[in-house]
Amino acid sequence: MKPELANVKALVFDIFGTVVDWRASVIAEGVAWGKAKDLNIDWAEFADRWRLGYKPAMDKVRKGEIPWTRLDDIHRMILEEVLKEFKIAGLTEEEKVSWTHVWRRLKPWPDSVEGLTRLKKKYVIAPLSNGNIALMTELSKFGGLPWDAILGAELVRHYKPDREVYVSAYYYLDLKPEEVMMCAAHASDLQAARSNGLRTGCSFIAPEFGSGPIGVLDRASSADFDLVSASIIDLAQQMGA
Amino acid sequence: MKPELANVKALVFDIFGTVVDWRASVIAEGVAWGKAKDLNIDWAEFADRWRLGYKPAMDKVRKGEIPWTRLDDIHRMILEEVLKEFKIAGLTEEEKVSWTHVWRRLKPWPDSVEGLTRLKKKYVIAPLSNGNIALMTELSKFGGLPWDAILGAELVRHYKPDREVYVSAYYYLDLKPEEVMMCAAHASDLQAARSNGLRTGCSFIAPEFGSGPIGVLDRASSADFDLVSASIIDLAQQMGA
Repeated sequence: MKPELANVKALVFDIFGTVVDWRASVIAEGVAWGKAKDLNIDWAEFADRWRLGYKPAMDKVRKGEIPWTRLDDIHRMILEEVLKEFKIAGLTEEEKVSWTHVWRRLKPWPDSVEGLTRLKKKYVIAPLSNGNIALMTELSKFGGLPWDAILGAELVRHYKPDREVYVSAYYYLDLKPEEVMMCAAHASDLQAARSNGLRTGCSFIAPEFGSGPIGVLDRASSADFDLVSASIIDLAQQMGA
Repeated sequence: MKPELANVKALVFDIFGTVVDWRASVIAEGVAWGKAKDLNIDWAEFADRWRLGYKPAMDKVRKGEIPWTRLDDIHRMILEEVLKEFKIAGLTEEEKVSWTHVWRRLKPWPDSVEGLTRLKKKYVIAPLSNGNIALMTELSKFGGLPWDAILGAELVRHYKPDREVYVSAYYYLDLKPEEVMMCAAHASDLQAARSNGLRTGCSFIAPEFGSGPIGVLDRASSADFDLVSASIIDLAQQMGA
């Protein structure tokens, strides 16, 4: 282990794309639901369109154009647009709620539970996601993710990459910035964490698990971070857990 | 199960006295430390005095006499007073920090882990304590308490029995008030939860586990609550988990 990682006491994680496979999970529910409803939709396109609405909506909150809005509610707002664009009409309120909550039913990557379980024996582990507490809690229950606490955007009503979110990780855990390592597959998240004094661990998605077109880290930038791992199991291994 | 409990989706817990045996834990560390330091102290009295400082200090925060102060810091403030009263001098800063963090090393009652593990299979479970997030996270790791999330006072910067804390439980879990049950061994906590619309489960400490002089519920008031249990295992049993 690098000497600067010897003092790390907690690992906080990005979730969407880093710990769970949002894309395959949304597509799978779409395909099953589309069959039942006899709809002819490209569900990969549907999933990507939904996810692409995510950043602009959060940016509106970050710029103060709209008040604080939980990610569940942002997901619902974007769903309404996507349903229109894909000409899917006539959903009941119950179906819309269920669709919105597909983001609470995302499957972990195959290495996530084992890697986190190992890390938990030696470190405090928590999500540091833009997902709200209810979403993270249900998602973690669904996938068996063994967190010590749920941290993230909702506790400070700011979205990443706002500095308040990164600062909150060490504040709430009563640690120094350099005792917390942000783990993510996205360069922008890690860069923001680093500029707020956190250690950074880049966890690639192993290619055999597949990956979506959004948010996969360019391997060329990996030298910028304290640690680069091929999976969460590899991350645990490298952190001596 | 009573019909009004059929919709409960989450159980939130008081911690000190309900899930962990703060008194025996503080006494045990005092006895061990006193022997090593050759001090002649009544550690039961020391523990009770420390705990008795807790409510007045939180009340100062509740009335706005002092700004928001985390429970770890309140524990430290009271420790300084108690050390003076018991004429214990010459502690290093490190020893004072370690003493303050005795509240992060409290042993669960013998039924807590088994009862919570059963409940977790059917319900969302979380602490709703006045302890801050770092304190609750470390305490839970120390005792193996398998929470789904860490909720409580620090998320809203209010101490129980302020209504903000009870409201935050269903707000953060995205549930209705009646879908959340507050579980505690203290009548005042349950009464405040009930008056804010939560369901209430009174969990007595089984007498064979012993109990301190503070905060044990008067059995006569148990008819006021939706459920009365003899232990957390009994609570799980009654909740069909």
